[in-house]
Amino acid sequence: MGLIVQKYGGTSVGSIERIKNVARRAVATKKSGHQVVVVLSAMSGETDRLINLANEIDPEHNRREHDVLVSSGEQVSVALLAMAVETLGEKAISYLGSQIIIRTDSDHSRARIMDIDGSRIKKALDNDHIVVVAGFQGIDASGNITTLGRGGSDTSAVAVATALSADVCEIYTDVDGIYTTDPNICNEARKLDRISYDEMLELASLGAKVLQIRSVEFAQKYGMPIHVRSSFTDCQGTIVCKEEEGMEKAIVSGVAYNKNEAKVTICGIPDRPGVAASIFSAISAQGIVVDMIIQNISDEGLTDLTFTVPKLDYDHALTALQNINQEIGARNINGDKNIAKVSIVGIGMRTHADVASRMFATLARENINIMMISTSEIKVSCVIAEKYTELAVRVLHQEFELAEETKIEN
Amino acid sequence: MGLIVQKYGGTSVGSIERIKNVARRAVATKKSGHQVVVVLSAMSGETDRLINLANEIDPEHNRREHDVLVSSGEQVSVALLAMAVETLGEKAISYLGSQIIIRTDSDHSRARIMDIDGSRIKKALDNDHIVVVAGFQGIDASGNITTLGRGGSDTSAVAVATALSADVCEIYTDVDGIYTTDPNICNEARKLDRISYDEMLELASLGAKVLQIRSVEFAQKYGMPIHVRSSFTDCQGTIVCKEEEGMEKAIVSGVAYNKNEAKVTICGIPDRPGVAASIFSAISAQGIVVDMIIQNISDEGLTDLTFTVPKLDYDHALTALQNINQEIGARNINGDKNIAKVSIVGIGMRTHADVASRMFATLARENINIMMISTSEIKVSCVIAEKYTELAVRVLHQEFELAEETKIEN
Repeated sequence: MGLIVQKYGGTSVGSIERIKNVARRAVATKKSGHQVVVVLSAMSGETDRLINLANEIDPEHNRREHDVLVSSGEQVSVALLAMAVETLGEKAISYLGSQIIIRTDSDHSRARIMDIDGSRIKKALDNDHIVVVAGFQGIDASGNITTLGRGGSDTSAVAVATALSADVCEIYTDVDGIYTTDPNICNEARKLDRISYDEMLELASLGAKVLQIRSVEFAQKYGMPIHVRSSFTDCQGTIVCKEEEGMEKAIVSGVAYNKNEAKVTICGIPDRPGVAASIFSAISAQGIVVDMIIQNISDEGLTDLTFTVPKLDYDHALTALQNINQEIGARNINGDKNIAKVSIVGIGMRTHADVASRMFATLARENINIMMISTSEIKVSCVIAEKYTELAVRVLHQEFELAEETKIEN
Repeated sequence: MGLIVQKYGGTSVGSIERIKNVARRAVATKKSGHQVVVVLSAMSGETDRLINLANEIDPEHNRREHDVLVSSGEQVSVALLAMAVETLGEKAISYLGSQIIIRTDSDHSRARIMDIDGSRIKKALDNDHIVVVAGFQGIDASGNITTLGRGGSDTSAVAVATALSADVCEIYTDVDGIYTTDPNICNEARKLDRISYDEMLELASLGAKVLQIRSVEFAQKYGMPIHVRSSFTDCQGTIVCKEEEGMEKAIVSGVAYNKNEAKVTICGIPDRPGVAASIFSAISAQGIVVDMIIQNISDEGLTDLTFTVPKLDYDHALTALQNINQEIGARNINGDKNIAKVSIVGIGMRTHADVASRMFATLARENINIMMISTSEIKVSCVIAEKYTELAVRVLHQEFELAEETKIEN
């Protein structure tokens, strides 16, 4: 007998019929001999509906009250699921973040979980209940309701699983696992059986929206395996877990892409200490998050600097730079919104020196120009013209033989 | 400077525009020098929407989960109001039943308030906040969410006012006070300036739906004055308060009616001990609440018994009686759904012996037959044919001169 935490997102509980479906799944898991805790998001659309009401009053509304408001969404879904479980003959009980207690810091609407007391859930499980927990929400030390920010229910689920020393945290979603790349643009994309936390983090931050990054970080920190799977089928999904001795080590596990960034280039900046600091203070003062940064080798005392920002922030970034150009004295400030970042990710890269050069050669064969390069221990990213995105993903997928089952490397 | 508790019902917070209106009223009250606590219901329609969702899953759904579900309605309205108050430049903070703490028993969906800890509200008031409290909900000793049943927000407001020793509890509604009778059927109906708790209780139980009965009982127990007034005008409403020396004592304060009852008659029952007990055990076993009961004088060892039940329970009541008729041996069981109860209420009756006979004579003049009579110290009720209801109300209103300002009686 095991203890399984199951998390279902808003789409999976988006209607009464779907809530009944979730109830059937939880009951089936219990009948197969496990203790079951279900963590839920709000019914799809509900959080947006509530936020719209608040914005009608004041787009800059109070953040404490924002959390009181939106946390009501999960309160509705957990009560309905508990009722639905009982119609199937099993006992069920719902708990809010304030009841179990999911303790967070006080950073409203993006709070972080500090601690979960698992005792109340354990007692209910021992009394043969299926326990239904409201995701996304917690309570701070003063008893104020907090929320974890968009996608926070994934983190709630992993945190609850960790507090209970569960065997696995299952994250149900509308896709059936993690793929080697986006099946919508590469029909050879293959579902992965297992992937390491490190690889998942690189893939998540590169645009695969299946799991919230913080939930993976949390799972990695405590070694909680995550099983990403579909709420519409019974197929095995993808296990996100620790990289273990003897685990299959693909050189490359996946190809990711991101079309949501834009490139800003500052040419001919006097190459003296403090210039980069001036530039990036001006950018961050606008609340803009910079991703890649590349500085060219200085020539004749002048240097060029290129970096990427979210497309939505592109115009703000240019304005901010023009406003400080008197101070930095650049010859020219320009940019490009029509770019994409294509990345290959894999823990096997650590022991294979030629991965980056194979990537560059593959893109070159297709006449795809590389504008920027950035690397980590298990990732290589290239910025290219946006129009080549799909082509680049497909040829990289082929080059690294991702359509085939991973071979065990020794 | 005083402390004022204001309660607004679902209609008063039924839209963003109306929530802003409530915010303006609360802020105006604060600016006139008072500390202000606002108690809210859910936005109109919201509680029904939630109950319908639950009923789609299971009409007999779990009552604990029912309370988790429906209490989310007030959570939404309090957060929105707190935001709306802040747009007007005043500080505001919302509290749920579980936060302040409103302690109740564990009788889910019809819980009773045991205790309120006013300290958290007082602290927020002293920090210059307008405090917004979720009505209708509380928390039991085990930390489960409870609700007080329909109209429970009135009781929440009175209980909060009592816990804080407020100067007055204002109940805002869509009528502008308590009337001598229903203005829809008697255009001479007049708004009362003041009415005693006892009279209000008799009027409430007779069908005037302005205030929940339990809130009046609660206010009477602790001597908290209630000011019933309109959320759409600034007019003074009606004060419900203790009957005091020198207070105006109308002989009759109001005429009420109730068309929601039906009459059941059991004829020719052997007049022996235990028969009435058998009959009313059979009725109460069906969960049917009996209102008036009349037993005629026994003749030839046989007696007749007549009582009233809610119209909705009429058929069940007849079936229950037919099922036990072998045991009680009545000659005939029949009834009438087309009846109404008309009542006059007034604390002045205690000292005026002729009130009942004036009522009977007034009805007789119009050829209205009286089927049943029941009296209390401050009330006389008559059951008549339903079709005469409006006529009876109008002639009684005229007979007791309710259209005119109350004369002080000595």
